[in-house]
Amino acid sequence: MSIITIVGAGMMGSAMSYPASDNGHEIRLVGTPLDREIIERAKKDGYHITLKRQLPKNVTCFQIEELSEALKDCDLLIGGVSSFGVEWFAEKVLPIIPKSLPVLSITKGLHANDDGRLISFPDYLAAKPGCDGLSLNAVGGPCISFELADRHHTVVAFCGHDMETLKKIKALLSTEYYHINPTTDVIGIELAVAMKNAYALGVSLAIGLAEAKNGEGCTEEYNPQAGLFTQSTREIRQLLEIAGGSPEQIIYGAGDLYVTVFGGRTRRIGTLLGRGMTYTEAAEVLKGVTLESVAITKVVIEALKKSNNNVEKFPLLQHIYDIITKGITVDVPWEKFEQ
Amino acid sequence: MSIITIVGAGMMGSAMSYPASDNGHEIRLVGTPLDREIIERAKKDGYHITLKRQLPKNVTCFQIEELSEALKDCDLLIGGVSSFGVEWFAEKVLPIIPKSLPVLSITKGLHANDDGRLISFPDYLAAKPGCDGLSLNAVGGPCISFELADRHHTVVAFCGHDMETLKKIKALLSTEYYHINPTTDVIGIELAVAMKNAYALGVSLAIGLAEAKNGEGCTEEYNPQAGLFTQSTREIRQLLEIAGGSPEQIIYGAGDLYVTVFGGRTRRIGTLLGRGMTYTEAAEVLKGVTLESVAITKVVIEALKKSNNNVEKFPLLQHIYDIITKGITVDVPWEKFEQ
Repeated sequence: MSIITIVGAGMMGSAMSYPASDNGHEIRLVGTPLDREIIERAKKDGYHITLKRQLPKNVTCFQIEELSEALKDCDLLIGGVSSFGVEWFAEKVLPIIPKSLPVLSITKGLHANDDGRLISFPDYLAAKPGCDGLSLNAVGGPCISFELADRHHTVVAFCGHDMETLKKIKALLSTEYYHINPTTDVIGIELAVAMKNAYALGVSLAIGLAEAKNGEGCTEEYNPQAGLFTQSTREIRQLLEIAGGSPEQIIYGAGDLYVTVFGGRTRRIGTLLGRGMTYTEAAEVLKGVTLESVAITKVVIEALKKSNNNVEKFPLLQHIYDIITKGITVDVPWEKFEQ
Repeated sequence: MSIITIVGAGMMGSAMSYPASDNGHEIRLVGTPLDREIIERAKKDGYHITLKRQLPKNVTCFQIEELSEALKDCDLLIGGVSSFGVEWFAEKVLPIIPKSLPVLSITKGLHANDDGRLISFPDYLAAKPGCDGLSLNAVGGPCISFELADRHHTVVAFCGHDMETLKKIKALLSTEYYHINPTTDVIGIELAVAMKNAYALGVSLAIGLAEAKNGEGCTEEYNPQAGLFTQSTREIRQLLEIAGGSPEQIIYGAGDLYVTVFGGRTRRIGTLLGRGMTYTEAAEVLKGVTLESVAITKVVIEALKKSNNNVEKFPLLQHIYDIITKGITVDVPWEKFEQ
């Protein structure tokens, strides 16, 4: 039995407690300042209000003020914050942990250097004050949080720079339903799965376009969705080449894109934009929802421009960017998908 | 205006008449001996009984006995037969056309040589008696036939060995909604899109598994579907490497897999098998339906064995093969998807 501390009690961070618990570990789930209500309720009766499920046995909940207690003697730290919480995580959590404690991050996103070079979050965090020498690893691949909590078969990659550490983390979390592929291609995995948020918005534009034409809830049109899916995988492959990831990581990008088109917020914003709303109108409808798709699109298009990479080779991402930043409505540049 | 003759009046062959007609060409749609009823009705009032749509203007229908009349002075021959019709097409049609007439085939499938080498249909056909010197090209990519007929945006690849010919064919068929990427990577495109039939069966096993657990029509489980999708793209990539196609054609494989999971026969058989039926039971339910997924799985697994390629690297395809040929029921080898 090991001790696994999860910092960040959102849906995905908390879902990681299920395979950990099924392996008999002690789990300490620590809320960020944004998770106060989640932890308050879970402390009472173990019910997680956003995951809408009972947390598994072996889980003890902590408010952020109890962080140091939750970190005591732990064997693995899971970083469960969203991309909007990475700076906080780098400032408040990483500098106070022992260098020997491996970290596994579920955060999806990318950072761009001043020269436009794309950096994975693990490598970005490693360069922060007080974070050098840490073992920073990450999870990528198709996984809807509540399905992991329901113990559906899930296939993911764990990436980091040291294979031995990855294998140890895999041994802690691998179950009959949680299937883990360790790989040292950090930028490859992190880029492929970060981009799925942007491109899930892109694919779901076709859902909204069909609704605008045929009425909401009508038969979907799959050729346009699949055309956008094909173009999305093309553009993710090109980004992998630019960033130095292995093109084979496209398999996680494609799988993650598949699952993301079906679930949640990104499909919702893409559909609204596809119906013809401006970004401002769609954001108003989805008020208060954090949109990782929007953040990653801006980071990547602006990085491509800075690094003088040919933005013309990314017509779909460029169109998403224009919708988000220029107030235009959907007008998919289909002709640019022909080569 | 050019003359385009389509031989094979099934759904996909016939759907090609829409972009051709929209470009103002004269289209001659010739039924195979299996399409007699389709042509009989379409000759009366232009209604296509399996596509369930009115054929576009400019289309004239022909029974197979009228083939030579339909071929007279034509500028492009579209081969509209399924993989079960390729031998017939190679014997009865290809040897009687002029060598200068370019052929565009919609047939999906692969042939395996005696030594287990995988060959695209265009190259297989080119080696048939009376077929040498023909310009044999093919279409691949995500396209549901009735959606093309409804003029939904569709992105495909046209492959062949001569780029100039491909560009000419593209000019005949390209429309505002039919987006064509010409490429000389014939085996890459043909392999990627042929495999989608096998792997769409694989992905839809997860739909049946969820139904067996939760009841038919219940919420689907996307993590398992996406896990199978990821593994499918991994195996298609490996096959591309073995067969000498460019790994970048995985984008058409992934897009085609996406669209195929949503439409038609392959999803149906995969779902039935996922519910726990044996192949014999599922085939009984789908009586009379031709299953390209089954054919391609057998061809490829048997070719891998013959060529001494490591079948162990294809655990999903191997499982589909075992279900089809050995009478076993579904038992997805999830642990083999971990590397």
